[in-house]
Amino acid sequence: MHEFELIKTIFDRHGANHIQADIIKGIGDDAAVISPPMGRQLVVCTDTLVQGRHFFGEWERVEALAFDIGYKAAMVNLSDIASMGAKPHSLLLALSLPQRLNNKTWLTCFADGLFSACADSGETVSLVGGDTTAGDMLVLTITALGFGEHIVYRHGAKMGDDIFVTGCIGDASKALDDIRKHGTSPIQDKLYRPMARTQLGQELASVAHAMIDISDGLAQDLGHILEQSGVGAHLYLDALPASDELAKLDLPTQLQYQLTGGDEYELIFTAPKNACLPTDCPMYRIGEITTTQGVQLSFNGRLLDQDAPYPFLTYPTLDGFSHF
Amino acid sequence: MHEFELIKTIFDRHGANHIQADIIKGIGDDAAVISPPMGRQLVVCTDTLVQGRHFFGEWERVEALAFDIGYKAAMVNLSDIASMGAKPHSLLLALSLPQRLNNKTWLTCFADGLFSACADSGETVSLVGGDTTAGDMLVLTITALGFGEHIVYRHGAKMGDDIFVTGCIGDASKALDDIRKHGTSPIQDKLYRPMARTQLGQELASVAHAMIDISDGLAQDLGHILEQSGVGAHLYLDALPASDELAKLDLPTQLQYQLTGGDEYELIFTAPKNACLPTDCPMYRIGEITTTQGVQLSFNGRLLDQDAPYPFLTYPTLDGFSHF
Repeated sequence: MHEFELIKTIFDRHGANHIQADIIKGIGDDAAVISPPMGRQLVVCTDTLVQGRHFFGEWERVEALAFDIGYKAAMVNLSDIASMGAKPHSLLLALSLPQRLNNKTWLTCFADGLFSACADSGETVSLVGGDTTAGDMLVLTITALGFGEHIVYRHGAKMGDDIFVTGCIGDASKALDDIRKHGTSPIQDKLYRPMARTQLGQELASVAHAMIDISDGLAQDLGHILEQSGVGAHLYLDALPASDELAKLDLPTQLQYQLTGGDEYELIFTAPKNACLPTDCPMYRIGEITTTQGVQLSFNGRLLDQDAPYPFLTYPTLDGFSHF
Repeated sequence: MHEFELIKTIFDRHGANHIQADIIKGIGDDAAVISPPMGRQLVVCTDTLVQGRHFFGEWERVEALAFDIGYKAAMVNLSDIASMGAKPHSLLLALSLPQRLNNKTWLTCFADGLFSACADSGETVSLVGGDTTAGDMLVLTITALGFGEHIVYRHGAKMGDDIFVTGCIGDASKALDDIRKHGTSPIQDKLYRPMARTQLGQELASVAHAMIDISDGLAQDLGHILEQSGVGAHLYLDALPASDELAKLDLPTQLQYQLTGGDEYELIFTAPKNACLPTDCPMYRIGEITTTQGVQLSFNGRLLDQDAPYPFLTYPTLDGFSHF
């Protein structure tokens, strides 16, 4: 199938130009043209998923998994927009596609996944452009555009802020381990179909001082907030929310997943004490911002010390998910 | 080297935030934040270069060629912005990088190339974000953002318009053939270091009815203008500009390169007869827009006919460069 034909028939099914009035031109020219809303900042990010790294090689053989790949590729980017407190607007898709996947069935399932993620985000998000090229490996790069009035950065955390997380964490990396060992996991949806906190990100924009999603794991991503804000943190390990599945594990293993497991799309944010938080979603207060350098960990009020570890806890490794 | 360290030290050397006042946040958060200029449209495109397809595998071993890869990846995207008549503003880079290239030398040369292309475009273009991930093959996806007041689309060509090209075409595909045969080419810079018509694109924005760059070859890209504008064209084959190198070839071979050779970054545009064109760059009038369906070809005033070909010309294949 020819590149242009392929893009047009499968990816332009929703006719982006007709859905959003501010999309002057979607797919079909050298570039997409968008009329930016007045008084809003443009927020833009890009994320790549690579065969063999972000999804297993076998995924490509199963149509249902083509859906998941498309779904996740979109969601991962929508999450980056959400973590800035902005409203997602549109996506561009760059697809390096092995010849054997260049067929209508695989591409349609993939596109179904991508568009479903956009719909599930609760916002109108259109695919406005892209590029398709032949390659030996499946590599997807999505660029997401959003607009926001109050943008929340990593660098805004302030001494005395509470630290919150918007949901249970650690499931995605547990699911990955399950799948590697057993080929399946009861919580694999947390890995394959993550849900970006699109609405919540926007609601938090007016109250959060700093925000980030947990794509690289709580320890590493909180580390970014602390480093860029020039502050430290006290983290309450006993307050980290765990799913029923994760709570079945012994505590050190559970904490390891919660602290270092990447591929999570909950948000961590800091907000002033007694801030008025959205009530339509559970929020877990997991720590506070301090002026001390680095991260202090406590469990049930008792401080952990690298030299004198808590009786039943080894000091967790504070490395998150690394891309190398 | 760790992902974040790598991105920061090599790609954030110019501190995008400090160069352009409207870049509120460049590299270093979940997304870049840009303050769109008032009264301008946002123009955004994405293009992928894949090892083994858009550049040869051997390139990766030679530092000088890392420069060329970075240069071309940026230029190809700047060209898409230029072909809309817009002013390029910023880039995002998604890099799927084999472990063996994840070293400071290769990455620095690559980044040098990328930033040189931005500088050579004559505009201030900053790298505002990206994503780096490990992969078995080198795959680069660049997203380019630009802003423009008068956007020029493919669909605007009007009956009676003249068709122009902004420079000699066919050299890039000739160079590719040379390199495949002999390992080198006297015109390889046309392939390795194309020059986007950044300034010219903006100057043409107020006069051109339709515009496109020739990344897929003249025949195919003119075809896009015709199809989307619902018009036909009469193309003067004798008027297609050729470099000295291309003019050495026999005429059918030369025309084949000029008509079907992709990877060119000159612009084709249509403009009303007697339009006031920029004079700082040679423009070649290569045809006119007609109401006849498809493309009529002529040589020295004589129409070519598929059934009764011109004595010394076979009817050129009107297929451009295909990505599959």
